[in-house]
Amino acid sequence: MEIIKQLQQDFAAFLANTDFGGQPTELYEPIAYTILQSGKRLRPMLCLLACDMFGGDENEALWPALALETFHNFTLIHDDIMDKAPVRRGKPTVYQKWNADIAILSGDAMLAKAFQFALKPKKGAELARQLGQVAIEICEGQQMDLNFETQQSVTIEDYLKMIRLKTAVLLATALQMGATVANAKEADIQRLYDFGINLGMSFQLQDDILDLYSDVEVFGKRHGGDIADNKKTYLYLRALEMASEKDRQRLEQLFSLRIDHDETEKIEEVEEIYNRLHVKEAVEQVMLDYDRRAFECLAAVDLPEERKAHLKTYAELLSGRKK
Amino acid sequence: MEIIKQLQQDFAAFLANTDFGGQPTELYEPIAYTILQSGKRLRPMLCLLACDMFGGDENEALWPALALETFHNFTLIHDDIMDKAPVRRGKPTVYQKWNADIAILSGDAMLAKAFQFALKPKKGAELARQLGQVAIEICEGQQMDLNFETQQSVTIEDYLKMIRLKTAVLLATALQMGATVANAKEADIQRLYDFGINLGMSFQLQDDILDLYSDVEVFGKRHGGDIADNKKTYLYLRALEMASEKDRQRLEQLFSLRIDHDETEKIEEVEEIYNRLHVKEAVEQVMLDYDRRAFECLAAVDLPEERKAHLKTYAELLSGRKK
Repeated sequence: MEIIKQLQQDFAAFLANTDFGGQPTELYEPIAYTILQSGKRLRPMLCLLACDMFGGDENEALWPALALETFHNFTLIHDDIMDKAPVRRGKPTVYQKWNADIAILSGDAMLAKAFQFALKPKKGAELARQLGQVAIEICEGQQMDLNFETQQSVTIEDYLKMIRLKTAVLLATALQMGATVANAKEADIQRLYDFGINLGMSFQLQDDILDLYSDVEVFGKRHGGDIADNKKTYLYLRALEMASEKDRQRLEQLFSLRIDHDETEKIEEVEEIYNRLHVKEAVEQVMLDYDRRAFECLAAVDLPEERKAHLKTYAELLSGRKK
Repeated sequence: MEIIKQLQQDFAAFLANTDFGGQPTELYEPIAYTILQSGKRLRPMLCLLACDMFGGDENEALWPALALETFHNFTLIHDDIMDKAPVRRGKPTVYQKWNADIAILSGDAMLAKAFQFALKPKKGAELARQLGQVAIEICEGQQMDLNFETQQSVTIEDYLKMIRLKTAVLLATALQMGATVANAKEADIQRLYDFGINLGMSFQLQDDILDLYSDVEVFGKRHGGDIADNKKTYLYLRALEMASEKDRQRLEQLFSLRIDHDETEKIEEVEEIYNRLHVKEAVEQVMLDYDRRAFECLAAVDLPEERKAHLKTYAELLSGRKK
């Protein structure tokens, strides 16, 4: 798709021309280091495509697109401190390469910069409000995720709420911002937001599945990393629900082993239980339900179908419907 | 002054009525814990007094006042992690009472909330831009301060820049926000901003002096804490400048002792050198220069003197000119 490539190039150029600041270098080097690493630029792309869909001005939409990417990278820097993650995108995380103080502070500066960028367009106040809202929700989601580590029982409802807050709302806000800049109708902005929520839920469930059921070479993460880390993902919670008393106890036992325990055997045993219970298929079903609902929301947007084509194609590419 | 008490009460009531959020409690309890502790509410007061001075609507100014206090408390929570400070205002700091992850995250949420509050009034976009600007400057100031810990030589110019960024700009922005809400003229907003910068510089130098030369009972901090911590304050840098080669070498030696070294003797020796060099008097001179310049800026504001009386009295009370 020509337009998708074009928008990706436009955003890359806009980002490359952005001056994030210079002095003190300890504050600004980690910012450049993080945001200039290549990524999918998923959130900026959703914002630009939403604006394009309603015939808005791309030059205006580039600002919230930049705000979203800056904000997203801020969350990565702070989350990596909390998760003690040594590596991201194949490179040392900021807190590892510098230290936790610098990671806290450069993250804080990025959050402030994100608001500065969001405030640039004519509708800046509205965009900044949307950013403030989603920022708070994401903090709530991250806190829930941290709580799950030590929480005895996590319900499927808790988990869905957590991934909505931690992941889905930012995709939804990206679409909302693009549509806002383009002066879309309130009802259509809401439909696009709902499209983003459902798409985000579907993506996260897909991520949960791919952790165990994917070609490591392609996906780039270690096989069963979530199991090794005792992460209470949807797969695990669903398995508990579907399991016999004996399997349930065994799963809970395996997920309370120390994280530095030899992981290969543990992952194999969990995988065997999951397979026996057909957990993957059950989770895929839920994922496809979100996916279907997402595209229903998009279909309900009051525009000719051809105007929705680019966003639809992009989302289909991401969700693996199109190769 | 009746009006000062009244504004303090109004702000206290506004703060008490603010819903910062509820779930997850691990995120929101530290926010309430921090911001509901009594403080001087210096930044809200400057904002409200600036608005009052130009005859603005107090109900509008309460929002940026709340944004400023929320923002200020966010900086305290994150700074306390970096400074490993166990106690603030006589109570355990957030990262001590909970943990560093929770301190990072509740701080992040407060920064986002501060923007949400700043965006409430009619001039919300302008206020949020001012908040974004000052937030970035304060991150720069904090990073400079962290750098000073390990930096071989810190110039007086570096130090003044650091305290301007870390302390003075927020007082200046508080005044700027109050004047902005009240639709003051650009030139007057700038004069009030400059008043705040000079006042802030003066306050910080006074703090540096009080660390060593104050009645511990009144000031509430340990005597010579900055010296014990090897903090390169204005007193120290000025002493280096005024010292003989022998004193200079001894001071540098004393300020490179491990921080857990017995501090009493060290503080006494440093104090003896400072006294011999009349460092206190030299710093007081610089402080009074800033103080004088501050009130010149206030005098230049294009309003009848009686309209400036409340802010002037408040600033005089703070700077110790009035008891």
